[in-house]
Amino acid sequence: MDERGVLLFYVACMIGGMILFATWARDPKGVHREEYLVAICIPAWSGLIYLMMASGLGMAEVAGQVTYWGRYLDWIVTTPLLLVALFLTATHRLKERPYALLAAVVAADVAMIACGAIADFAVGPARLVFFAIGVAALVVVFVLTWGPMRTLAYRQGDDLGRVYTIVAAYLSACWIGYPTIWILGPSGTGAIAQPAETLLFVLLPIASKVGFSILDLSLLRRLSPTRAHNPAMSEPATAVG
Amino acid sequence: MDERGVLLFYVACMIGGMILFATWARDPKGVHREEYLVAICIPAWSGLIYLMMASGLGMAEVAGQVTYWGRYLDWIVTTPLLLVALFLTATHRLKERPYALLAAVVAADVAMIACGAIADFAVGPARLVFFAIGVAALVVVFVLTWGPMRTLAYRQGDDLGRVYTIVAAYLSACWIGYPTIWILGPSGTGAIAQPAETLLFVLLPIASKVGFSILDLSLLRRLSPTRAHNPAMSEPATAVG
Amino acid sequence: MDERGVLLFYVACMIGGMILFATWARDPKGVHREEYLVAICIPAWSGLIYLMMASGLGMAEVAGQVTYWGRYLDWIVTTPLLLVALFLTATHRLKERPYALLAAVVAADVAMIACGAIADFAVGPARLVFFAIGVAALVVVFVLTWGPMRTLAYRQGDDLGRVYTIVAAYLSACWIGYPTIWILGPSGTGAIAQPAETLLFVLLPIASKVGFSILDLSLLRRLSPTRAHNPAMSEPATAVG
Repeated sequence: MDERGVLLFYVACMIGGMILFATWARDPKGVHREEYLVAICIPAWSGLIYLMMASGLGMAEVAGQVTYWGRYLDWIVTTPLLLVALFLTATHRLKERPYALLAAVVAADVAMIACGAIADFAVGPARLVFFAIGVAALVVVFVLTWGPMRTLAYRQGDDLGRVYTIVAAYLSACWIGYPTIWILGPSGTGAIAQPAETLLFVLLPIASKVGFSILDLSLLRRLSPTRAHNPAMSEPATAVG
Repeated sequence: MDERGVLLFYVACMIGGMILFATWARDPKGVHREEYLVAICIPAWSGLIYLMMASGLGMAEVAGQVTYWGRYLDWIVTTPLLLVALFLTATHRLKERPYALLAAVVAADVAMIACGAIADFAVGPARLVFFAIGVAALVVVFVLTWGPMRTLAYRQGDDLGRVYTIVAAYLSACWIGYPTIWILGPSGTGAIAQPAETLLFVLLPIASKVGFSILDLSLLRRLSPTRAHNPAMSEPATAVG
Repeated sequence: MDERGVLLFYVACMIGGMILFATWARDPKGVHREEYLVAICIPAWSGLIYLMMASGLGMAEVAGQVTYWGRYLDWIVTTPLLLVALFLTATHRLKERPYALLAAVVAADVAMIACGAIADFAVGPARLVFFAIGVAALVVVFVLTWGPMRTLAYRQGDDLGRVYTIVAAYLSACWIGYPTIWILGPSGTGAIAQPAETLLFVLLPIASKVGFSILDLSLLRRLSPTRAHNPAMSEPATAVG
């Protein structure tokens, strides 16, 4: 399978995800409309960008190596949306959502993606500096998602807390995969060659985008209806997590 | 009239629109401030971009033909704002606006503009693929504006429903004009030459931006004050549309 | 000190600001979380962009002179955030914030930055046209911050009104400095040479970003807790300003 075929396979998976979530949205089972909208927008945007890359756009040759800048155009939109999905899960039964927390995690995420893009275009030691700052921003994302957001989820019931922990663990594992591939790829040490990196950067996003939303939505759909299940959720002061 | 003169004529129309809406805003006649703000921002941004294009910026030569990328910089801001204006009209008498619906229609719109831009820069069969996806996104915009948004407007009174139907029909007609010109222009089949396309892409936006806001605001200003006219609006469950 | 050293000195100041505001956020003293988040995001983004410029990215040679486009990437994010901080100060004791006012001032600000960027890349008389429009947009920002926003602040108590007036005066002085330097610099008349302009564009942003937030937050932290100090704040109709 050539590089273009790999990209088109990715696009097909995104379309499949969109169709699946649109079908689920017709029978929402107590999950908010916003969750479905976000789940559909993620593969829609990502599929569009990969289709663009398959058409020969979205890449540039910098210092003799090909850089897929289309990837950053993908991530700058989809990673905030993934965090919105995670935030909606963490606040599934809340009436008033603490949007300052969402703003903080999205700000750290945007800084992370911006650092990755700058690192990719920079030359010399600057590459490692920006890579390091990007990893620091990822740590901030992890601290916020595993600290206050998880506490918030458990406050609305143990069942929601467990769902949140599963989806947060899944997304965390995927996101640790990205810088790992990056540092081993041609933009980093070069241990992984360009074709292999491209393949990994196709399989991992499928798992972290469509795969994530399948896991997230199917767990939320199995939960009992919003605000009807757990009596503890009306006592926000007694945190469990 | 040369191409630059056409662009400056457009800028003058945008300035005229801004002055008109700023004047109306001083005597709001029960129409929300947000509506006037949006109506002023649309020609302000668009006029700025066209002035930039008249200064010789905002275009690139790709594969031997001139592409006005400034246009996409215009549309990526103004088309979401036009949909915000339409949404504000559809929810004119509501206290709690269903923002998920606005997010859905804006997401489809952004995808549409992105596809148009990619199509314009792509070569070969990719042009038609992205053009087709862009048209599909436009269909989603139409389904949402003619389905749930229209129902919402009628729910607040027959008079508001009729106003919404008129402005939605006007905007729809303008927006169908864009891809029609695009497919007939040099980026598409080439039936319309570049100067003619440029002229049409000046007249149509004047109608769809300043013209739209004149129609929208003047109809809303003629409606009786918010939440005072129609007794049916307090019964949101009995949809008319 | 060479140009790169100046840029790295700026980055160090931004990191210092972030650490300071993160420390203050642990003992918020009645100031909203959002204020600290905004105060941290401003130097975080700005420091990232300056670090990028110190790495040799973020500049382009147009018509024989170096243009730091990274600056505009900085300002397009940080100047709206500074206005958000000012707006949060102006609405410190309000439960329902009038977001249409924030949207208006941010829209004028974005137009101002866009005009500055276009002016910098344009050649000939267009430079002055866009510079003039940018100054006009700055005037709109001033009218809104010194008119309705100041009135709003005084409505919640004379003490808050005074705090707002001090921070608004400080930010206004900084912002008048920017176009003054620009018009005297190589992009304008050329009275100030590139190295001097670069130095001024390092010192002024430190004052207007970290300096502004230090002033703003320390004054707000000295105010008595939200909604507990001033009995007049519950009578929103009796404006003082």
